[in-house]
Amino acid sequence: MPPFQLRRPTNTLRAMQTLALNAPSSSWPAIAVVPFSRSTCTLTSPLIVSRLSRAKIRMQASSSPSSSSHSPMIEKEIPAAEKPRTFLREVDENTSNSSDVRARFEKMIREAQDSVCAAIEAADGGGKFKEDVWSRPGGGGGISRVLQDGAVWEKAGVNVSVVYGIMPPDAYRAAKPTENGDVKPGPIPFFAAGISSVLHPKNPFAPTLHFNYRYFETDAPKDVPGAPRQWWFGGGTDLTPAYIFDEDVKHFHQVQKTTCDKFNSDFYPRFKKWCDDYFYIKHRGERRGLGGIFFDDLNAYDQDMLLAFATECANSVIPAYIPIIERRKDTPFTERHKAWQQLRRGRYVEFNLVYDRGTTFGLKTGGRIESILVSLPLTARWEYDHQPEEGSEEWNLLDACINPREWV
Amino acid sequence: MPPFQLRRPTNTLRAMQTLALNAPSSSWPAIAVVPFSRSTCTLTSPLIVSRLSRAKIRMQASSSPSSSSHSPMIEKEIPAAEKPRTFLREVDENTSNSSDVRARFEKMIREAQDSVCAAIEAADGGGKFKEDVWSRPGGGGGISRVLQDGAVWEKAGVNVSVVYGIMPPDAYRAAKPTENGDVKPGPIPFFAAGISSVLHPKNPFAPTLHFNYRYFETDAPKDVPGAPRQWWFGGGTDLTPAYIFDEDVKHFHQVQKTTCDKFNSDFYPRFKKWCDDYFYIKHRGERRGLGGIFFDDLNAYDQDMLLAFATECANSVIPAYIPIIERRKDTPFTERHKAWQQLRRGRYVEFNLVYDRGTTFGLKTGGRIESILVSLPLTARWEYDHQPEEGSEEWNLLDACINPREWV
Repeated sequence: MPPFQLRRPTNTLRAMQTLALNAPSSSWPAIAVVPFSRSTCTLTSPLIVSRLSRAKIRMQASSSPSSSSHSPMIEKEIPAAEKPRTFLREVDENTSNSSDVRARFEKMIREAQDSVCAAIEAADGGGKFKEDVWSRPGGGGGISRVLQDGAVWEKAGVNVSVVYGIMPPDAYRAAKPTENGDVKPGPIPFFAAGISSVLHPKNPFAPTLHFNYRYFETDAPKDVPGAPRQWWFGGGTDLTPAYIFDEDVKHFHQVQKTTCDKFNSDFYPRFKKWCDDYFYIKHRGERRGLGGIFFDDLNAYDQDMLLAFATECANSVIPAYIPIIERRKDTPFTERHKAWQQLRRGRYVEFNLVYDRGTTFGLKTGGRIESILVSLPLTARWEYDHQPEEGSEEWNLLDACINPREWV
Repeated sequence: MPPFQLRRPTNTLRAMQTLALNAPSSSWPAIAVVPFSRSTCTLTSPLIVSRLSRAKIRMQASSSPSSSSHSPMIEKEIPAAEKPRTFLREVDENTSNSSDVRARFEKMIREAQDSVCAAIEAADGGGKFKEDVWSRPGGGGGISRVLQDGAVWEKAGVNVSVVYGIMPPDAYRAAKPTENGDVKPGPIPFFAAGISSVLHPKNPFAPTLHFNYRYFETDAPKDVPGAPRQWWFGGGTDLTPAYIFDEDVKHFHQVQKTTCDKFNSDFYPRFKKWCDDYFYIKHRGERRGLGGIFFDDLNAYDQDMLLAFATECANSVIPAYIPIIERRKDTPFTERHKAWQQLRRGRYVEFNLVYDRGTTFGLKTGGRIESILVSLPLTARWEYDHQPEEGSEEWNLLDACINPREWV
């Protein structure tokens, strides 16, 4: 063989011959796996081998070990030169109630992506977002924006995506874990749209922020008589500092509470606890960070109210986060501070790769890997048996990760 | 609450009130979970909360989210001041055939730990291994040795351990994945012993090495009539460079082949392919590195022969690896070389946290976390959508990870 040809094995190509998976970053439970036989599926072989698009890829009948029949059959996304006005299918652009929410949610997350990216670029003062647009023949697509090695942020990703798919029973349970595991409908067509973002600053005193808001709809399962068509909202915003400044964490949580209180006084206490519970690194007995809000499967309220709530949450990201960054981005630090930040980044990696539902499921089912893993920090560190000194600032952070506090 | 008290929630204590899990590093499938009611279990509460032993730990009736009834109930290891002559139970020190293999295997892995650590320290010329010894009241224990921030190695871990436990059906399947999943015996007492090591050098031209050799025995399941008592060997040695030097990889594989050929001419081709298959990062379509040998569930040969084979494999680690290190440890390198090494270390983290059977199962069941995760590199890196330039040395390595080569 020529020495410098990257050959992707044939089974990788086979795995690409079906439709359609969108896998944005952290905390995203939507997975679409659509059988190859669907009429909406078009195989566009020259484009789908895009991961190493500069390569002359020669296929070989090679032995890729994990290409068993258990592998989900998915279609690779297709890079697009320009952003479309909408990623919705044409049929959804009609003004039925359902498509109305779909269209309004897509509009909201695309506007949120624009405003968050503009605010991040302005605060960074140096880095610019690189944009990747993709679509899928069967409908849907996404926009990934990543700012890497900026003046303030080491790595900042803000992704939006729209997915049409068929949810297999396993994915259905993953997406709606509160569902009774005994109820196993067959594959169900679904729609999902979401925004997902992780922002990792360089300065160890400036916290990492994650947020993600998403909307789901499923068709009524045909094989479970009486089961309704379903929709739900999910999402949250959470803060992961390496060092605690009380005023920062209080400000962040206060913005979440104020946002929640506009809609329901139960939301903040309920979603704050949900967040502490979700971002739990079980093998460490620690949370990933200092929480915020998190909710999933939310449909017990008016649909318009929840759309307005998700919109308000997305719009509160900048006022919750940027004032903290402005205060901390230029704080002098030592090697010790940096090493501790890197150890906490290691915990971030552990949570995302081992526990995060969206990441783990996305990896298993073959989503757009670079979009899924943009949530990982640029750099991370693992020291053997590191223990912060009693009474130190590092100890204080660890204590708050082990024993969640009430901040407001 | 006082600001600097690390409080571990009550349920963590509850989770510790049973016996016995030993979870060494990468590729170790043995898990022992023993019900609290076993007579061999002794609760030694002041010692078991050792993870933050310098802390004044105050228990609270807190809400640790993942402390459901699904959590395995395990007993924490107890630090020991001195290495015991053997970690075997007294009853196993009798000279029945079975305990003879147990004793001979423990002796072998402890000697291998000594000789590998001595060779690593000598080649490093600066760093020294830190040793942690632990035991469990119900029998078994281990010795972890870690050299961190040496002259040559960034992080080098060499662990041995001996485990007595009760294997739940799930763990049994995990330990013997070739077993028919339909056969579900009840919990089965087992014995396991192994050596496990990951050696991460600093120089990007010096490869990472992993090896792991282990021996298992189970009692005959009482509820599956006719099912025999079982034993098997597992293990392997594999090389993960960031850059390919043909002579290095050929030398490494040649030593594996020579070792295998002393026992069975089928071993090298079979275990070489097994290794390429096992260390597969499915979501990347790449292997972690350039392979070596890997085998599991090996019992279709004479027990003494397999013990001799595992011994020969462990003894071949130093001649396979140290000559490569001597050639590469002082090679000048640039930031680009270092960044590529760090990206490949990121892949190492992805494999170990997402796919490695020993690591993922160990994390879920609550083994000695620091021993499990010593396999992770000191530092790692994730860049968005990094693509090596066509024809570059980085491209050559990636090609070999995608399309495994025959080296000898």
